[in-house]
Amino acid sequence: AGKSDHQPAGRYVDFPVSVVLPAGGSGERTGLQTPKQFCSFLGRPLISYTIQAFERVSWIQSIMVVVAKENMDLMTDIIQRFQHRKVRVVPGDSTRHRSICNGVLALGEEEGGRSAAERPKVVIIHDAVRPFVEEDFLYKIAMAAKEQGAAGAIRPLVSTVIATTSEGYLDHSLERAKYRASEMPQGFTYDVICQAYQRCSESDFEFGTECLHLALQYCGTNAKLIEGPPTLWKVTYKRDLAAAESIIKETLSRSACIITGGSTQAATLAVALQKAVSALDMELDVIPDLMGDNARYLLKEWNFIQVSVNTSCLSEVEAMFVALEAANRALLHPLVVIWVRFSSMDELSVSGRMAEPAAIMDLASTAKLRNILLYGIQLHQSKEAERWEKSVLRVAEIASALIRDRSPALVGQLLQA
Amino acid sequence: AGKSDHQPAGRYVDFPVSVVLPAGGSGERTGLQTPKQFCSFLGRPLISYTIQAFERVSWIQSIMVVVAKENMDLMTDIIQRFQHRKVRVVPGDSTRHRSICNGVLALGEEEGGRSAAERPKVVIIHDAVRPFVEEDFLYKIAMAAKEQGAAGAIRPLVSTVIATTSEGYLDHSLERAKYRASEMPQGFTYDVICQAYQRCSESDFEFGTECLHLALQYCGTNAKLIEGPPTLWKVTYKRDLAAAESIIKETLSRSACIITGGSTQAATLAVALQKAVSALDMELDVIPDLMGDNARYLLKEWNFIQVSVNTSCLSEVEAMFVALEAANRALLHPLVVIWVRFSSMDELSVSGRMAEPAAIMDLASTAKLRNILLYGIQLHQSKEAERWEKSVLRVAEIASALIRDRSPALVGQLLQA
Ligand SMILES: [Mg+2]
Ligand SMILES: [Mg+2]
Repeated sequence: AGKSDHQPAGRYVDFPVSVVLPAGGSGERTGLQTPKQFCSFLGRPLISYTIQAFERVSWIQSIMVVVAKENMDLMTDIIQRFQHRKVRVVPGDSTRHRSICNGVLALGEEEGGRSAAERPKVVIIHDAVRPFVEEDFLYKIAMAAKEQGAAGAIRPLVSTVIATTSEGYLDHSLERAKYRASEMPQGFTYDVICQAYQRCSESDFEFGTECLHLALQYCGTNAKLIEGPPTLWKVTYKRDLAAAESIIKETLSRSACIITGGSTQAATLAVALQKAVSALDMELDVIPDLMGDNARYLLKEWNFIQVSVNTSCLSEVEAMFVALEAANRALLHPLVVIWVRFSSMDELSVSGRMAEPAAIMDLASTAKLRNILLYGIQLHQSKEAERWEKSVLRVAEIASALIRDRSPALVGQLLQA
Repeated sequence: AGKSDHQPAGRYVDFPVSVVLPAGGSGERTGLQTPKQFCSFLGRPLISYTIQAFERVSWIQSIMVVVAKENMDLMTDIIQRFQHRKVRVVPGDSTRHRSICNGVLALGEEEGGRSAAERPKVVIIHDAVRPFVEEDFLYKIAMAAKEQGAAGAIRPLVSTVIATTSEGYLDHSLERAKYRASEMPQGFTYDVICQAYQRCSESDFEFGTECLHLALQYCGTNAKLIEGPPTLWKVTYKRDLAAAESIIKETLSRSACIITGGSTQAATLAVALQKAVSALDMELDVIPDLMGDNARYLLKEWNFIQVSVNTSCLSEVEAMFVALEAANRALLHPLVVIWVRFSSMDELSVSGRMAEPAAIMDLASTAKLRNILLYGIQLHQSKEAERWEKSVLRVAEIASALIRDRSPALVGQLLQA
């Protein structure tokens, strides 16, 4: 997210598309008690990230989440808490196919007896634990599904696949080039997936896992297979939780916005910081405030660096919090705000005051409750060029580390540059 | 690492075992310029972690690393820098099989014409990018290889495997229960792997990838397949780099040792901290110093928390650095040292001095060059019980976050509890 440069320009889907998201898994393979789809990343369950990946696609109409009966309340809470709009929840069943079938049927019955014309033309089926699916790939699946009746994502095999004897010995190995891993998402016309589930056997419902297989067997529909990107990967093992968190953090750490309050000294520092972070792979914009046109910075996933010159007063930060709150900006992700307290030489000679550590700690404790992570950095002006450059570089390094790590334990600290 | 509770008690291998570690891959799938095996984690290349995984196994005699000719110097530098002892490096060749064959032949020729009796009985072949392999699994592979001639790790398939038509449509899907993913390590008797490479065709050398397949085809050896743990996983994609780093950091963050300097006040704080971190899944030991028996804390992967009471003087930390340096403790991993400056009420009333932030920053900058990450936490005694408990909890949270994150950008900071 963050920047929309991967948005496929000019692509639009002119038929209704809905999504079924089976989220009934028990998460045995992570070795955790919580099923993976409900594990939290930066305070938000994985399934909410996956829902968001579909919700931001304009041509997707609705998302049917299928969860185990015992998780219906939990799921409803998640939808309310993170203000998801396109979502409905239906109870799952004893197997994956039965659960997906529930979701498909519920799409047809939406809002009490809709006519055939209002039903989705294409149904995309995805996993709740593949949160990084992108719009351009969903587009490919939707178009191919409409044209062929069925379409599915594939990936190259990472390991050689072998057949084993019943005694646990090597029987033979498969020629890797001829096979692929079948992944998600998959897409079907509504008619094909309905028919497949109407015609398939109890044994299919009980033991089958592959929807593409049912479409082939019961509708004669040969699915179009489309090579997907690595981002389709499924959060399966404990290590995948760390990988997912790292991807989410990286996505949130790409850009920050320095607010100078119109001060010339702050603007000079901001330009020096821009130069220093360019090596750290972060985009930095400099603006005087968040008024007028600059309010657009409140709408995307920017982090904020407020520079205050010669003052221990946090009023500029408090004003920013009001704007962030009004824009509901910390709803989906914890937001990083860094207060850089910049003391010029003159101020030092006049008062020599340090910023009051207790003030920023108090403000940070309150902000944390609203999902805003506030950190402070103290910087002293130096007329010695080398020393000044070193301090600016340290501000850049510290700010970049704080934004990347998002450590809740370190909020309210006033760090020295 | 860290604790050796997973060491298989009483298992010993009474025949010579050596390892061939092909490390010639180009790392295309990570999308990075550096091949994965040379990507650094906490300042050390991945391949060094994999070498360490074998080096710490007492019954493994030697490790033959096979690298592309252009990386021979780099590899030699890594071995010197991280003081690997059991390793030799040989140049690879144009394909995986040719490279492994080079390594196997080099094992036979070790130290100029050794006799057949000195050759390894079993050769384990592994990937440089699977650093988390454990001793107990290597034991299983070595024993099965000696008994059966060949043995290999397998894992369940994560995705359904499908056959595709030449036009990119679904042909059929495989019955998942009958197949497995073939992973590493694999083990062979020296005779079987040598014979397989002597007899196999140019086409096998050119296009083959599976050593187990060669053993079956050219030696009639049916490999024993052994289900391996998820830790055998291969660092393949960019997300895997994050997962690997997270696993390494977690391993290094399990235990810390509080040094009280014999002070009663420090010991009381240490006990309160022990209670506070128990919720944070970290083991905390309390010792007065690192002398005598306690020098054993220098030998394993402990982190250190030095408590200094009523002093701004860092001499205790400096003394610890000398001991750590003497034990060569920061060779393989950056080591975290946290200085907790504990001010009791009396001291505040007497002098009110803050610790000098410049002193700890200077010491931290020097220590960082020697792979030691020093952070400071300032804590004031409070007679108000609730406030005191909150402060102790904050020390625990900050210390735990610093140890887990190991952020180089934050060294030398004096944080407020
Ligand atoms: Mg996209
Ligand atoms: Mg072990």
